[in-house]
Amino acid sequence: MASTTKDRIIDSSAELFRRQGYTGTGVKQIVAAANAPFGSIYHFFPGGKEQLAAETIRSSGQLYIQLFATIALQAPDVTTAVGDFFAGAAETLEETDYADACPIATVALEVANTSEPLREATAEVFDSWIVGATEYFAAAGIAREDSRELAFTMLSLLEGAFIFCRAMRTTEPLQIAGASAVAAVQAALVR
Amino acid sequence: MASTTKDRIIDSSAELFRRQGYTGTGVKQIVAAANAPFGSIYHFFPGGKEQLAAETIRSSGQLYIQLFATIALQAPDVTTAVGDFFAGAAETLEETDYADACPIATVALEVANTSEPLREATAEVFDSWIVGATEYFAAAGIAREDSRELAFTMLSLLEGAFIFCRAMRTTEPLQIAGASAVAAVQAALVR
Repeated sequence: MASTTKDRIIDSSAELFRRQGYTGTGVKQIVAAANAPFGSIYHFFPGGKEQLAAETIRSSGQLYIQLFATIALQAPDVTTAVGDFFAGAAETLEETDYADACPIATVALEVANTSEPLREATAEVFDSWIVGATEYFAAAGIAREDSRELAFTMLSLLEGAFIFCRAMRTTEPLQIAGASAVAAVQAALVR
Repeated sequence: MASTTKDRIIDSSAELFRRQGYTGTGVKQIVAAANAPFGSIYHFFPGGKEQLAAETIRSSGQLYIQLFATIALQAPDVTTAVGDFFAGAAETLEETDYADACPIATVALEVANTSEPLREATAEVFDSWIVGATEYFAAAGIAREDSRELAFTMLSLLEGAFIFCRAMRTTEPLQIAGASAVAAVQAALVR
């Protein structure tokens, strides 16, 4: 099935925002990457770049939680799932020359104090990740309060390690963060 | 002692980069915040904004490691030091309306695939933090290999939690990350 122009614009925006941020990405660059006419941006996103970014953030956030769900479904248990998620993230980073890490972290830091609509979009996505991971850990038999703490711990380790990996051009931080996340899950399982 | 124009330019750049990133900060905004003449940028930084940013990254990175050292010196032991560092970071975030988190993370993500000189500056700073924290943990009696892993774990937790805190406007992620970092230190101490 051929993708629609709107889908292509969102996909291109997602890739450019992830790699070079929101401020550093121009609308002209997005339409060029999406092979779309310039005016189509304002046809699909009357609010311009900010509206496009808000939809891109929400769409990227959903895709990322689906990625975790796919990995979790294939894993025999929760510790394996968490380990596989970090290993997969490290593989993607290496394959993309350390460009493709978190789909929204760069934008989240840029907009936290400069665009309230975009900050809200990133907060919504992060909240959905935390809620999703909390449910997942709780379903594995971990107490609900511990599950929420584990969700924040795992995702903080992931996001922080992404920053170090991208800057230092090594997957070492992600390997260490993955091992720490697995250890945290194991500790919670026996609590 | 009155600060020099160059110091004021670096201080203003540091604050603006931390809050709104590298791309979103203009040279005009920096000189206005520093109360410096426009031409002074090119006098002190012949390489322009990129050179100024590289010096700002290195200077901010050193200040941050000094902040950790100050907290560590006042703490009775290593677990207290780590807990205090996270608590202090949470306090600063609240006091600054969630603007002042890591001095270089926003820039690090923006430049990782767009400016090799700035990526190298962020990598150097991160490396110095990891080496410094590794030495600190090793001096507390933790095995050197464990100390390096602990350094990455602690700093990944901190950096990741900063992203969630700034987006979600709550210090909950930092409180959880701090508790997880303290638990990791305790586990390493008895290993």
